[in-house]
Amino acid sequence: MDSVSDAQALLRRGVEEIIPENGLEARLNSGECLRVKAGFDPTAPDLHLGHTVLLNKLRQFQELGHQVLFLIGDFTGMIGDPTGKNATRPALTAEAVAENARSYREQVFKVLDPARTEVLFNSSWVEPLGAAGLLRLASTHTVARMLERDDFQSRYSAGTPIAIHEFLYPLIQGYDSVAMDADIEIGGTDQKFNMLVGRQLQKNYGKKPQLVLTLPLLEGTDAKLVDGELTGKKMSKSLGNYIGISEPANEMHAKLMSITDDLMWRYYELLSFRKASEVAALQLAVSEGRNPRDVKADLARELVARFHSESAASAADEAFVARFRRGELPSEIPEQCLEVQPEGIGLPQLLKAVGLTASTSDALRMLRQGAVRIDGVRVDDPDRRSMAGDSMILQVGKRRVAKVNLVLQSQAR
Amino acid sequence: MDSVSDAQALLRRGVEEIIPENGLEARLNSGECLRVKAGFDPTAPDLHLGHTVLLNKLRQFQELGHQVLFLIGDFTGMIGDPTGKNATRPALTAEAVAENARSYREQVFKVLDPARTEVLFNSSWVEPLGAAGLLRLASTHTVARMLERDDFQSRYSAGTPIAIHEFLYPLIQGYDSVAMDADIEIGGTDQKFNMLVGRQLQKNYGKKPQLVLTLPLLEGTDAKLVDGELTGKKMSKSLGNYIGISEPANEMHAKLMSITDDLMWRYYELLSFRKASEVAALQLAVSEGRNPRDVKADLARELVARFHSESAASAADEAFVARFRRGELPSEIPEQCLEVQPEGIGLPQLLKAVGLTASTSDALRMLRQGAVRIDGVRVDDPDRRSMAGDSMILQVGKRRVAKVNLVLQSQAR
Repeated sequence: MDSVSDAQALLRRGVEEIIPENGLEARLNSGECLRVKAGFDPTAPDLHLGHTVLLNKLRQFQELGHQVLFLIGDFTGMIGDPTGKNATRPALTAEAVAENARSYREQVFKVLDPARTEVLFNSSWVEPLGAAGLLRLASTHTVARMLERDDFQSRYSAGTPIAIHEFLYPLIQGYDSVAMDADIEIGGTDQKFNMLVGRQLQKNYGKKPQLVLTLPLLEGTDAKLVDGELTGKKMSKSLGNYIGISEPANEMHAKLMSITDDLMWRYYELLSFRKASEVAALQLAVSEGRNPRDVKADLARELVARFHSESAASAADEAFVARFRRGELPSEIPEQCLEVQPEGIGLPQLLKAVGLTASTSDALRMLRQGAVRIDGVRVDDPDRRSMAGDSMILQVGKRRVAKVNLVLQSQAR
Repeated sequence: MDSVSDAQALLRRGVEEIIPENGLEARLNSGECLRVKAGFDPTAPDLHLGHTVLLNKLRQFQELGHQVLFLIGDFTGMIGDPTGKNATRPALTAEAVAENARSYREQVFKVLDPARTEVLFNSSWVEPLGAAGLLRLASTHTVARMLERDDFQSRYSAGTPIAIHEFLYPLIQGYDSVAMDADIEIGGTDQKFNMLVGRQLQKNYGKKPQLVLTLPLLEGTDAKLVDGELTGKKMSKSLGNYIGISEPANEMHAKLMSITDDLMWRYYELLSFRKASEVAALQLAVSEGRNPRDVKADLARELVARFHSESAASAADEAFVARFRRGELPSEIPEQCLEVQPEGIGLPQLLKAVGLTASTSDALRMLRQGAVRIDGVRVDDPDRRSMAGDSMILQVGKRRVAKVNLVLQSQAR
């Protein structure tokens, strides 16, 4: 069964966990067209590359002939956050949900195959449950079991309020798998508990429990190697370390060019459509002396082409190179080392230390004016910190440029 | 405002707690016809005197011109216990609920005034909430708050499962108060938490929060004075220490005649319609030498008359007296003292010890045959224990009778 083992290798790429571990082979061996579920928030979608890790995995299933069930969780979305505590989750009208669904389609079909994608809305089976059905659903799980979920456990221990309806969301999400007859559910590692609830409920309803496949949460553009391990917060709009799939081609390209080499390989694993063997060849080439910047440019071109076009990707690449040539990012930049404490250094302090601003308050003003760039990408977060080991090109306005390598104070050369 | 203070005195009789404490006077002063809510299980009703403590309080409100809202919680009843763990709560059909409601009416109108009683079913406002409404309701309270409830807390601590839907029941019960515009809710002390949820939800909905009035849970017929305090489990069919309001007049009468004098005064407070001043006069008479058995007979006659008729009550009284005369319960009975350990003595051991049976296995056989009576009331529980301080007439069959006073071994005379 070589085709199954090839398919397995593809589907396991970048995957964190498969539950049950041996379940994938059996599903693939069955030869059936599998129903692959992935759930999405009904709020205004503005997808970034982090979201596409999941979309890419769904696409791989499609390439093997399987059906993607793209679930929009509109039931809870039309309720909003009833506590009113979560300003980002206002109650959505049916019109807003429809509009968001349209926007989702526009974005996700840059990755997914529309012919093998079914878009579903969970209000269509949750609403008919009624108050009685929801109560019955609530009877299937215990309070103790729900409190085992990591985030609930830590909130409960910390005395942070958990509203009772929050216990119902995982159950509703699990019931979706029952109603959808999902064979596989794919989601981020943070969704593991909820996806396992789906397995349990399918068993309760006498159905075959879905396979659960978890994917890592993609690190943001500021992730870097710490003690030999790639370390960084997950990509998130609110953290400012994201690359939106609708961002202009040049922005997307420049952001990708700004990531560390280590993060580049992570992005190759989770974001590139190149075969694993091709990526391995690139790694070999770099280890033998090829400039990693060229390999990074390949990745940037692939991703810009996916979300814009081949020509936009080439143009972005040329523009990036030209910026160096035209001196917007001078190819010759004074380079300096700066000693920093283990806790690193704040951006305003860093700008002053390398002599790009006269003072930290001057640096703050420049940040507010949007005049500061790091590796060609505009930054405006005054709380941004850099650590020993970081290396970057700092720019204030057009003229003031410095390349700085941060080193730990005790190891100063 | 003498009428208000008289009314207050009546309404406070036997009450455990009023929340807020000063709220009753204000409500009565308003001169409005108050909507007084009490909730009942939709399962097959078989009311005993314990239930009538609540009915009596409702009746007092009716006597003052207020309206009783007799709520049958059919919504949850038609669901049953979804976990299937509670065999006593099977899912009820709409027909069964209607039949149970009819049976309730038959029983409760022996106490309540039908003209001032409205019978309501909560399915009529909970079902229309739908899944979305129930979710919103669930958002109004936190998990931590719900776990504060005594029984949830102890179950959670003990690792006994709490199904999530159990957290929804108090909210549904509280929402009932919103939908019913309840001014006052009356229930047992075990309902305090749930009734306070009603206050909270009424506030959420911009309504005036109901007054909460808790009543003690009536002690069963086996309660007795321990260390100067009346001590015993609450009246309950499963504990066998109950007097059903549909029991034959003679059974009811005999059971009432078997209670201790201390329990008799408790029953006077919570079950008798006699004025507090009349009860006080009876207490004075007994303290001055009147035989408490006569006062007990008065209580028995009053209660038998309420649930049967005056003539049935007289007949039961006469039959009881005749049993003594006819020697079924001989008026002269050999009396003996028996030393017992602090943990008391089991009934089979006791029967053997006083010489009424040849052995404990003989005693067990007699118990199984229904041949054993204590104070004229048939008993069949082989696990029944008696303690030092107890005094009773034991009977096996018609002939074998003994009066026994139990004393603690170290204090043996």
